[in-house]
Amino acid sequence: MDVLVPLAVDEPKTRLAGTLTSAERTAFARATCADVLDSIRGSGHAPEVLATAAVDVDAPVRVDDRPLTEAVNAALDDAFEAGAERVGIVMADLALVTPTALGRLFGADGDVVLAPGRGGGTNAVVVSEPEFRTDYHGASIRDHREAARAVGADVTEVDSFRLATDVDEPDDLVEVLLHGEGRAREWLVDAGFEVATDGRATATRAQE
Amino acid sequence: MDVLVPLAVDEPKTRLAGTLTSAERTAFARATCADVLDSIRGSGHAPEVLATAAVDVDAPVRVDDRPLTEAVNAALDDAFEAGAERVGIVMADLALVTPTALGRLFGADGDVVLAPGRGGGTNAVVVSEPEFRTDYHGASIRDHREAARAVGADVTEVDSFRLATDVDEPDDLVEVLLHGEGRAREWLVDAGFEVATDGRATATRAQE
Repeated sequence: MDVLVPLAVDEPKTRLAGTLTSAERTAFARATCADVLDSIRGSGHAPEVLATAAVDVDAPVRVDDRPLTEAVNAALDDAFEAGAERVGIVMADLALVTPTALGRLFGADGDVVLAPGRGGGTNAVVVSEPEFRTDYHGASIRDHREAARAVGADVTEVDSFRLATDVDEPDDLVEVLLHGEGRAREWLVDAGFEVATDGRATATRAQE
Repeated sequence: MDVLVPLAVDEPKTRLAGTLTSAERTAFARATCADVLDSIRGSGHAPEVLATAAVDVDAPVRVDDRPLTEAVNAALDDAFEAGAERVGIVMADLALVTPTALGRLFGADGDVVLAPGRGGGTNAVVVSEPEFRTDYHGASIRDHREAARAVGADVTEVDSFRLATDVDEPDDLVEVLLHGEGRAREWLVDAGFEVATDGRATATRAQE
């Protein structure tokens, strides 16, 4: 199965701007994307990066500078027109993802398989109903449930902490330190981050 | 299997104090606990509430006013001394829990089965190694991995968004609205909460 991996190339992860410089955010986002690509291949599928601009990554790249929803839906259209039976969409910022977690996603039954993200997002989808369209605005998990119902598609949801954890905000970094298994975690450790435990655990950065 | 459900009876959920009154926090915490008890029974196991004070809930209650770690470890000791082979510990504030999610926890192999919570916590444990002791301070998931290793126990981790989501802070309420299936969600809806979608989805309360 082809798996689309949407990636924002310029100024990614703006909500980490108080924690990482622009160059660091790009480096961290690329490390995370590389982990996601590895995990997709590790689960036996073929990733294709759906990037907002040309980018050097270890996978085929499709460039589309339109907003996420439009770019994903155009790629879905093209895939089904080219004869695909199922298409996956996995966000590039899932720093905890593993081949096992993706295996549960890709192996789930259902015309539309959804992996909810924290805060109402949809972090991964598998679509085998060509009429289904994504909509990543707002509480997308709720909209995707309704969109699937509207085209008569069976919906399955995958209950995974690893798939639910996209890394958007400083509070999310500690999840990578505690549960990450790839380059994104290594990048944070090399950049001086460590787990602090004052109440709920957080990531702090050593002074240089 | 006996499953301990630790419950703070007085002034629960203090981090929701800006969002809910003291009486509301207690009512919401009890609704959530009732959902957890139902799900444990629904998964075929027997819950016992480990409460900080006497409390009226729909399950046997063991009262222990010591801090969480000490109370849980004493209950584990007693259970293994009474001949238990496996003991579960499931936090009372897992408002998204379902019998299916708990089935994955209770059915997992391993001397110690851990369900990580967001922010380094440990939201559920199944113990079949009597030497294992809990420690809920700090980044407990890391400490529990080490504690299991220290007594030669095999560790399995269950990858579940439903088990990872404890409801501590205002930002967590939207998860209950979007994914909850029981009394906790009903309680929030009756109290006027609804999903707002300004960026990442949050829960807002209608003005009265």
